Amino acid sequence: MSKSEETRSSILHQALDISSEVGLEGLSLGILAKRVEMSKSGLYAHFSSKENLQCAVLDTAAERFIDIVLSPALKQPRGIPRLKALFERWLQWEDDEFSGGCLFITAATEFDDRPGPVRDRLVDHLRDVLDAIARAADICKKEGHFRSDLDTEQFRYDFWGVLLSYQHFRRLLQHPQARDYAHRAFERLVSSATPH
Amino acid sequence: MSKSEETRSSILHQALDISSEVGLEGLSLGILAKRVEMSKSGLYAHFSSKENLQCAVLDTAAERFIDIVLSPALKQPRGIPRLKALFERWLQWEDDEFSGGCLFITAATEFDDRPGPVRDRLVDHLRDVLDAIARAADICKKEGHFRSDLDTEQFRYDFWGVLLSYQHFRRLLQHPQARDYAHRAFERLVSSATPH
Repeated sequence: MSKSEETRSSILHQALDISSEVGLEGLSLGILAKRVEMSKSGLYAHFSSKENLQCAVLDTAAERFIDIVLSPALKQPRGIPRLKALFERWLQWEDDEFSGGCLFITAATEFDDRPGPVRDRLVDHLRDVLDAIARAADICKKEGHFRSDLDTEQFRYDFWGVLLSYQHFRRLLQHPQARDYAHRAFERLVSSATPH
Repeated sequence: MSKSEETRSSILHQALDISSEVGLEGLSLGILAKRVEMSKSGLYAHFSSKENLQCAVLDTAAERFIDIVLSPALKQPRGIPRLKALFERWLQWEDDEFSGGCLFITAATEFDDRPGPVRDRLVDHLRDVLDAIARAADICKKEGHFRSDLDTEQFRYDFWGVLLSYQHFRRLLQHPQARDYAHRAFERLVSSATPH
């Protein structure tokens, strides 16, 4: 990594933390400049606009998601063990990775009605995550763990709901049983997909 | 309604629309003043601080939710018909009521990590909504529509996930089958709760 790439990467990690707390829209170049102890013009040399910065932050989050959630899950045996690893690692990601909660979920409510390059990038990343869920469910079918007529598109909708509800119960309601609820919801989902 | 109450109510309805688009934090007194054609000091006479205004906007949304979702659902027969009405009306609320998506969900990601009176108010309203779901499920048990050992706390977690996933699929992904997915997820939930 060149010196310039190192600086850029370090800036993006700080930007990611700020965004998870105040949202991607709240990520101003002024606040970021203060946090990384650089001038605003210095930041501009790395990111030519706020939108470029926001897209780069989303890309950084996506890379981290692959490292922390997807790749380790892919190393688990095909079928339900892999799907379960994906789920458990996502809960852990939600708990540990961001001081202010998963950036994708925060950004989703910020940008769902704001057309433009940031929204497009967010949708691309979200589709990747949802595709990974559908693919994991598809492998469960091929391994005979799930019934052959399971609708994997529906499955990813349901899986996603379990994860989103977890964020509300854990972060907003600070419900002590949030994790138990998530596990039971996941078990019900898996059980409804297995052959009778 | 007195003239002053009328003005306050009209301001709050505009504030609700703005908040659903740009978030509760994005609701500045400056933007609102412009929209309602009042001076900022005129607004201050009604709401002494931004936090007071934000809480009042949440209260207004909660009142509207009762009028549009809860009350009509309560007029349906006890048990599954009432639960179904609650679900269908929530989808409609999500589709029609806000230009920028359900304010509670937007505010949830904004305030989950910001302690203070706005977060407290939001949590109160969200608990009311979740309690209404659990109560509807409890009536289903009493009517014999749901099995007697159903965990209604778990049920509200699952129900909430179906609704949250709907917002992502509909608003962010603009998925043409979002409503079908929501319906099938709801049917699976109901079916898992009915006696075998």
